[in-house]
Amino acid sequence: MKIYGDSISGNCLKVKWTADFLGRPYEWIETDVLKKESRTPQFLALNPAGQVPAVILDDGRPLAQSNAIILHLAEGSSLIPADAYERARMFEWLFWEQYSHEPYVAVARFQVAYLGKPVAELEPRLVERGEAALARMEQALSDSAFLAGERVSLADVALVAYTRVSHEGGFDLGKYPAVRRWVGAVEAALNIA
Amino acid sequence: MKIYGDSISGNCLKVKWTADFLGRPYEWIETDVLKKESRTPQFLALNPAGQVPAVILDDGRPLAQSNAIILHLAEGSSLIPADAYERARMFEWLFWEQYSHEPYVAVARFQVAYLGKPVAELEPRLVERGEAALARMEQALSDSAFLAGERVSLADVALVAYTRVSHEGGFDLGKYPAVRRWVGAVEAALNIA
Repeated sequence: MKIYGDSISGNCLKVKWTADFLGRPYEWIETDVLKKESRTPQFLALNPAGQVPAVILDDGRPLAQSNAIILHLAEGSSLIPADAYERARMFEWLFWEQYSHEPYVAVARFQVAYLGKPVAELEPRLVERGEAALARMEQALSDSAFLAGERVSLADVALVAYTRVSHEGGFDLGKYPAVRRWVGAVEAALNIA
Repeated sequence: MKIYGDSISGNCLKVKWTADFLGRPYEWIETDVLKKESRTPQFLALNPAGQVPAVILDDGRPLAQSNAIILHLAEGSSLIPADAYERARMFEWLFWEQYSHEPYVAVARFQVAYLGKPVAELEPRLVERGEAALARMEQALSDSAFLAGERVSLADVALVAYTRVSHEGGFDLGKYPAVRRWVGAVEAALNIA
């Protein structure tokens, strides 16, 4: 398997961590988004959406979208709950992550850490919705060790990616103690601390 | 099963169409987003994210996120491809829909059709990214009858929801003939035309 990814991207690291956790061998092909390496004709032939991560599976077929890739890699493993309801909850978090977390927490961090924008100049909507996302996680993690039950799942892999670096976008996990505890637990479970 | 949904929301209709296609009985509880009925304390107890659709399953447990709900309902049915790669492609489209299609095509339509904003006053970013999403679908559907293979799947259920009403947000499917053909085919397959 070849993984085309940018090491600064949480979406790309999700794929790396899942492959590492599962012991799946791969070749990592660093693809610099800031240098528009995901917009070259060669890359667009692999993923017409022009986004990293994208993978070429062992049989040569391409696949994109971080959460779709980790679902494919993890089929049949402990990272996908065997119980149908816990699995549904995992999916709930995976879709919530892409719609209600990544566009705020990850985008704020990208603008601050990689484009050099001061935190004070972030769009207020980014900050408000990012805080709302972290508060939603705090509520869920006050009741539960992990997001979709009592052991680590792809929901945790997906959500930890940008939550663990949210301070780089000006968010303070000190306000979210259950989230901070959970970040440590997920990093330990995935051996990425 | 109880489905809390707003009939003007494509995300909610996805759940209705999937339940109808599978012959799953349900009670539809109309929940008016414009009247903030998804923000009442009662609703937030059901779905802390304050979003429709949300369902209460037959065993009384809640579930949110349109694509997570339809995945749960459709487990073991023809709406989820049996082939692992086609299933991965279906997931790719489901995540792409929530990240790269719904925030533009659905939001433009909501602003025009429900908030009364003239098409000419839409944020240019909404229009550009909506057109890019439709162009991406046109490319995919020029090669394939449905999004994840040669029969209808949840990828089509999810993407058709806002694509079929995209003209209400000022988009012209006349520019995307393969998409227009596909909308008719999916409506016929789901019996929603």
